[in-house]
Amino acid sequence: MSEIRQDRATKRWVVFATERAKRPNDAVKRGETAPEPEYSEQCPFCPGNEAKTPPEVIALRPAGGAPNSPGWQVRAFANRFAALRPEGEVHVQNPEWFTSITGVGVHDVIVEHPHHNESPATMTAEEMLLVLEVITQRFAQLRGDHRLAYLALFRNQGVAAGSSLHHPHTQLIGTPIVPAHTRQELATAREFYDDSVCCVYCSTMEHELADGRRVVLDNDHYCAFMPYASRWPFETWIVPKHHEPAVVFDDRFDITSFAQTLQSVLRMLYLAAGDPDYNLVLHQAPQRDSCEDYYHWHMEVVPRLSTPAGFEFGTGIWINTVMPEEAAPYLRSFAGQ
Amino acid sequence: MSEIRQDRATKRWVVFATERAKRPNDAVKRGETAPEPEYSEQCPFCPGNEAKTPPEVIALRPAGGAPNSPGWQVRAFANRFAALRPEGEVHVQNPEWFTSITGVGVHDVIVEHPHHNESPATMTAEEMLLVLEVITQRFAQLRGDHRLAYLALFRNQGVAAGSSLHHPHTQLIGTPIVPAHTRQELATAREFYDDSVCCVYCSTMEHELADGRRVVLDNDHYCAFMPYASRWPFETWIVPKHHEPAVVFDDRFDITSFAQTLQSVLRMLYLAAGDPDYNLVLHQAPQRDSCEDYYHWHMEVVPRLSTPAGFEFGTGIWINTVMPEEAAPYLRSFAGQ
Repeated sequence: MSEIRQDRATKRWVVFATERAKRPNDAVKRGETAPEPEYSEQCPFCPGNEAKTPPEVIALRPAGGAPNSPGWQVRAFANRFAALRPEGEVHVQNPEWFTSITGVGVHDVIVEHPHHNESPATMTAEEMLLVLEVITQRFAQLRGDHRLAYLALFRNQGVAAGSSLHHPHTQLIGTPIVPAHTRQELATAREFYDDSVCCVYCSTMEHELADGRRVVLDNDHYCAFMPYASRWPFETWIVPKHHEPAVVFDDRFDITSFAQTLQSVLRMLYLAAGDPDYNLVLHQAPQRDSCEDYYHWHMEVVPRLSTPAGFEFGTGIWINTVMPEEAAPYLRSFAGQ
Repeated sequence: MSEIRQDRATKRWVVFATERAKRPNDAVKRGETAPEPEYSEQCPFCPGNEAKTPPEVIALRPAGGAPNSPGWQVRAFANRFAALRPEGEVHVQNPEWFTSITGVGVHDVIVEHPHHNESPATMTAEEMLLVLEVITQRFAQLRGDHRLAYLALFRNQGVAAGSSLHHPHTQLIGTPIVPAHTRQELATAREFYDDSVCCVYCSTMEHELADGRRVVLDNDHYCAFMPYASRWPFETWIVPKHHEPAVVFDDRFDITSFAQTLQSVLRMLYLAAGDPDYNLVLHQAPQRDSCEDYYHWHMEVVPRLSTPAGFEFGTGIWINTVMPEEAAPYLRSFAGQ
């Protein structure tokens, strides 16, 4: 008998199809891809090729050096094929029927490492920390931009996850609208708070820690677990223990511990699931809607080990073939390697 | 400058990224796949291999013949790896925190043609009509099942669209819950109706016909258009002109005209976009929530010509690189071929 589970924080239903159930290691990626070189002449993100990208907005150069030249450890610039552009103001057009707004916003690329063939799974926690420092600096710069309603941070690893360039990078899109998924998460979290006077993410984390079976990693500042109603095999959430609706830039955000936690989770996934393609997405409160009582920022890692099809796109119900109670201990067995 | 458009029926926002804009024929699928044979000994859906599937629930045998033997034109049976099973009653479990319900439901496969290498794009409208007759017969059987809250009909064409078997087939999943996407569509349509006393799908169709640029096909009974806020290149909706919340089985549903319309749209897409992988999804009212005034059934065709990534999954905002005003005339140029 299959089981249909509901995620409390999103009200999302997921079918666990036990008739086609797989052991966690049956869901992992098969087949070898050719190793990439440390430097690629064609790659616009490799050191020495800075002229192939728009000018940098932030870069870390531990040993100094001129902007837009080699010597950087992490480097951020506008996406050359940006979905949104920072020029101009937001205008609403044709409000009668065919509504649109001008595509004003930001779309950054943050190159995470000088080496073409690195990934967070093979980087050190110290290198990950430098990436997070650039991201939080960029967040701080964009907090004051009145045109940006939401800052979406995401990472696409591999072709199946929508990445077109191998060189390790994260992207940041600042949108002039609050995304529909964010609005839905906020509405569900607010309703839960109004009914129970507690945060649904705090409560979920407490219940997951008490149950323990789906917990991947637990430290003083963060908890990583596979949600009870995971949509994808090995889906993992990283949730801060300190309730905070968005990433902040003071000592309430333990950035060093977050770098260690994120790197450890991605390392375990890399080893357990055969270097899978995945998306990493930050969920946080909108820029001008602080949602302090009821929302709670977190990071979702969704390995692309299955292909969403007509049923998932049409209904929003997901079918998962791997139980998180089986995937989590398998992932944990790779801890510290 | 990019443009961010909103779909009125779903409130969904889509970014049209003109910086990475493609002409419609640049978005089409490249590369050849090896042709498939008319019969495959390994295929469980091919005639003669009926013993490899669960027993049929409906089949059309124009020249007669025994059940579960060759001679059928269309054949429906339970999915061997069903996500949901029809045995038992729906029970809610652990309502305190980790909520789940038993995986009761139906999951059918409808094999559309005896030939392994056919597809709706190469079938005749008469053959398509037989498929629709089996689907509507099956709908009629399942209407009375009190355990089923929603009937989801979908077709996955090709590996990128989540299909694992080449032989042409459609799937039907009857779920014990109303899907979240359906609830959201209903809520938006109801709000529109309460504000304007008309159906948002009727109004959308009227505006699309008046504008004309995105219309793909228009006949007495159906209109096919690429929505103003298309998520995917070549996304096309088929909307019945007669307002009806769900597919019905009397002369209000012109099944012959629908077979012709659907076959024509899929044929044009096949020719214009290089036999792309796609999902086809029916959107209709729930089983026991008739939504008569404000909901309107329709079929959505979503070619998988791009890969949704972290931004799309995280935010629900889609990025499209092809304007429907350019894709629609390109598709229309293949009409009648």
